[in-house]
Amino acid sequence: MTMSTDKLIVESPADFHVHLRQGELSKLVTPHVRKGGFDLAYVMPNLTPPITKTDMAIEYKKQLQAIDNTVDYLMTLYLSPDLTPEEVRKAKQAGIVGVKSYPRGVTTNSDSGIESYEVYYPVFEEMEKCDLVLNLHGEIPSDSTSNTCVLNAEEKFLPHLEKLHQAFPKLRIVLEHATTRAAVEAVRSLGSTVACTITAHHLAMTVDDWAGQSWNYCKPVAKYPSDREALREVILEGHPRFFLGSDSAPHPAQSKSVASPIQPCAAGVYTSPILLPFVTHMLESFGALDKLQNFVSGYGRAFYGRSAGLNARRIVLEKVNRYRVEDTWSFGETTVRPFWAGKEIGWQISDVSAFMKQPPRLDA
Amino acid sequence: MTMSTDKLIVESPADFHVHLRQGELSKLVTPHVRKGGFDLAYVMPNLTPPITKTDMAIEYKKQLQAIDNTVDYLMTLYLSPDLTPEEVRKAKQAGIVGVKSYPRGVTTNSDSGIESYEVYYPVFEEMEKCDLVLNLHGEIPSDSTSNTCVLNAEEKFLPHLEKLHQAFPKLRIVLEHATTRAAVEAVRSLGSTVACTITAHHLAMTVDDWAGQSWNYCKPVAKYPSDREALREVILEGHPRFFLGSDSAPHPAQSKSVASPIQPCAAGVYTSPILLPFVTHMLESFGALDKLQNFVSGYGRAFYGRSAGLNARRIVLEKVNRYRVEDTWSFGETTVRPFWAGKEIGWQISDVSAFMKQPPRLDA
Repeated sequence: MTMSTDKLIVESPADFHVHLRQGELSKLVTPHVRKGGFDLAYVMPNLTPPITKTDMAIEYKKQLQAIDNTVDYLMTLYLSPDLTPEEVRKAKQAGIVGVKSYPRGVTTNSDSGIESYEVYYPVFEEMEKCDLVLNLHGEIPSDSTSNTCVLNAEEKFLPHLEKLHQAFPKLRIVLEHATTRAAVEAVRSLGSTVACTITAHHLAMTVDDWAGQSWNYCKPVAKYPSDREALREVILEGHPRFFLGSDSAPHPAQSKSVASPIQPCAAGVYTSPILLPFVTHMLESFGALDKLQNFVSGYGRAFYGRSAGLNARRIVLEKVNRYRVEDTWSFGETTVRPFWAGKEIGWQISDVSAFMKQPPRLDA
Repeated sequence: MTMSTDKLIVESPADFHVHLRQGELSKLVTPHVRKGGFDLAYVMPNLTPPITKTDMAIEYKKQLQAIDNTVDYLMTLYLSPDLTPEEVRKAKQAGIVGVKSYPRGVTTNSDSGIESYEVYYPVFEEMEKCDLVLNLHGEIPSDSTSNTCVLNAEEKFLPHLEKLHQAFPKLRIVLEHATTRAAVEAVRSLGSTVACTITAHHLAMTVDDWAGQSWNYCKPVAKYPSDREALREVILEGHPRFFLGSDSAPHPAQSKSVASPIQPCAAGVYTSPILLPFVTHMLESFGALDKLQNFVSGYGRAFYGRSAGLNARRIVLEKVNRYRVEDTWSFGETTVRPFWAGKEIGWQISDVSAFMKQPPRLDA
């Protein structure tokens, strides 16, 4: 992939986990998918109200396309009692790709999240038949009596992942935004139908970075340095079931800057507008630049069976003097502040060439 | 101690770890020691510049007395190269009680903190002879390469505590503001010269409470629910080497409300103005009201050899309809916001009777 030490070409980057929101915020952030170098957005359904039905997802996709029609939006449904086996079939026919499961109350707009999976087994069975992907926010709710808190909520979820995979071995499952060594090891130990997304910000942060720093607060929280190391190692290894899902999660700036002692700030960090340069910057920091193509495109597209086809693009990244990430982005009354704002990165997108003749590469 | 289920008498409460600051902030917060029900303040030396010499501590004590002369201020020095064995003797003669050690860079104004203890062994030897107390902020600095972060910084400090105790078995040492089960167990395992303070806020919080909530962010950070449980258990047990040191640490409100994505907010929560009612509220929550007298006065005074003597007071606490903790306190241009602001507590100070004839009680 490396053209030289100063230039890289990445083909058809795909972000397999992104929040594009609603209303004015959506108008602000949706074009940032493309700005950040990405051609594909796997779109999360945690709106208000949640996208629980096929028709809602189709309508939402239209809204996103009206904002920016150059991106390939893969739509998902929010797992809820609205999702019947019949609705699964309808979703599949309508081109919906996955179903996202949120544990109740653990992140933005997750009040409708699930409490137990067994009740959804008929749905999962139909998803397995139809080949709809199950996307898991893998945390269990905090509970002092069982010593469960944000630090071990992911690790304590892993038995549920294993049980689901055993019950539905052909169901494709993605454990989203893994943050722990335990999660990496669990996914690695499971079959080829189980994959895992890794965000850009969890490659950068540990718990120290969000301690007292609300802009860096997200769910799942960044954990120990050894956990971050596990995420870096599995990318460095080039494991094909671990790929980028940014979990880019914009919130209006005022809800990230803490004002009330009663209410915590919104959970989520926003990486879309700088995503490809930032991921490149991070992978360079731990010597994994040769894994960039597969991490940001090849492995994810292979798992989802989403070749870029005739829409393939080549993105040229150039190594540059470090530049400061912009502080804020605004549209109308809405302002968001990206992750890494005020800090520096050393790569930028210098050129884009559209519509290649050949299908994009999965590096061997 | 219980007069009835609705009233409690506490004799001569003593806060063995408190930050009284400088300038306008000091004028605002120093009277809150008394307001919060306390007669004794063990005063931390992390000012700008740090209180490294006897003369500075005496001058600081005068400033505090000029603000409120009803409190017994026990003064400390900041462990630094300024502290020679000769200075230790001078400090002892001047009535200074302890020496506080801060690891470099881990909390407010700790840039002059220590990096290695061996260089201070001659100082500790003299402190042991003079019976000056060594107060330890027990955290080691974060370091990704050794997997050290705010979550395990205290546990990783404990071998240093043990080594110091072995080297100076007669030196009285206080591990300040313990937050982990590991710290409780370590102190319990050591000799009678080693004690431990516990804050009010660490009895209330876990990591979930400061995640995305800068007002609850302090160092050491609150940890797992099982760690909080260990703090509660050792109080419930009535272990005489575990007593209250509030680590009440006021910061101007604007430095607690996060504005910059580069700089974390100030670490510290402020409990002084509500301290005795809040500790009572917490101890009631885990069934330890019968340990209140010893936890907030008896054990600490016994360890430090500080009977209230003729200055003893009786504080009457009354169980009341829950009331909301005030949002802010201001003086001049300075505003602080207490811990638990906007939440409710069920006890208040209803009466104070001064100057008892008998020395205060250590409950058997």
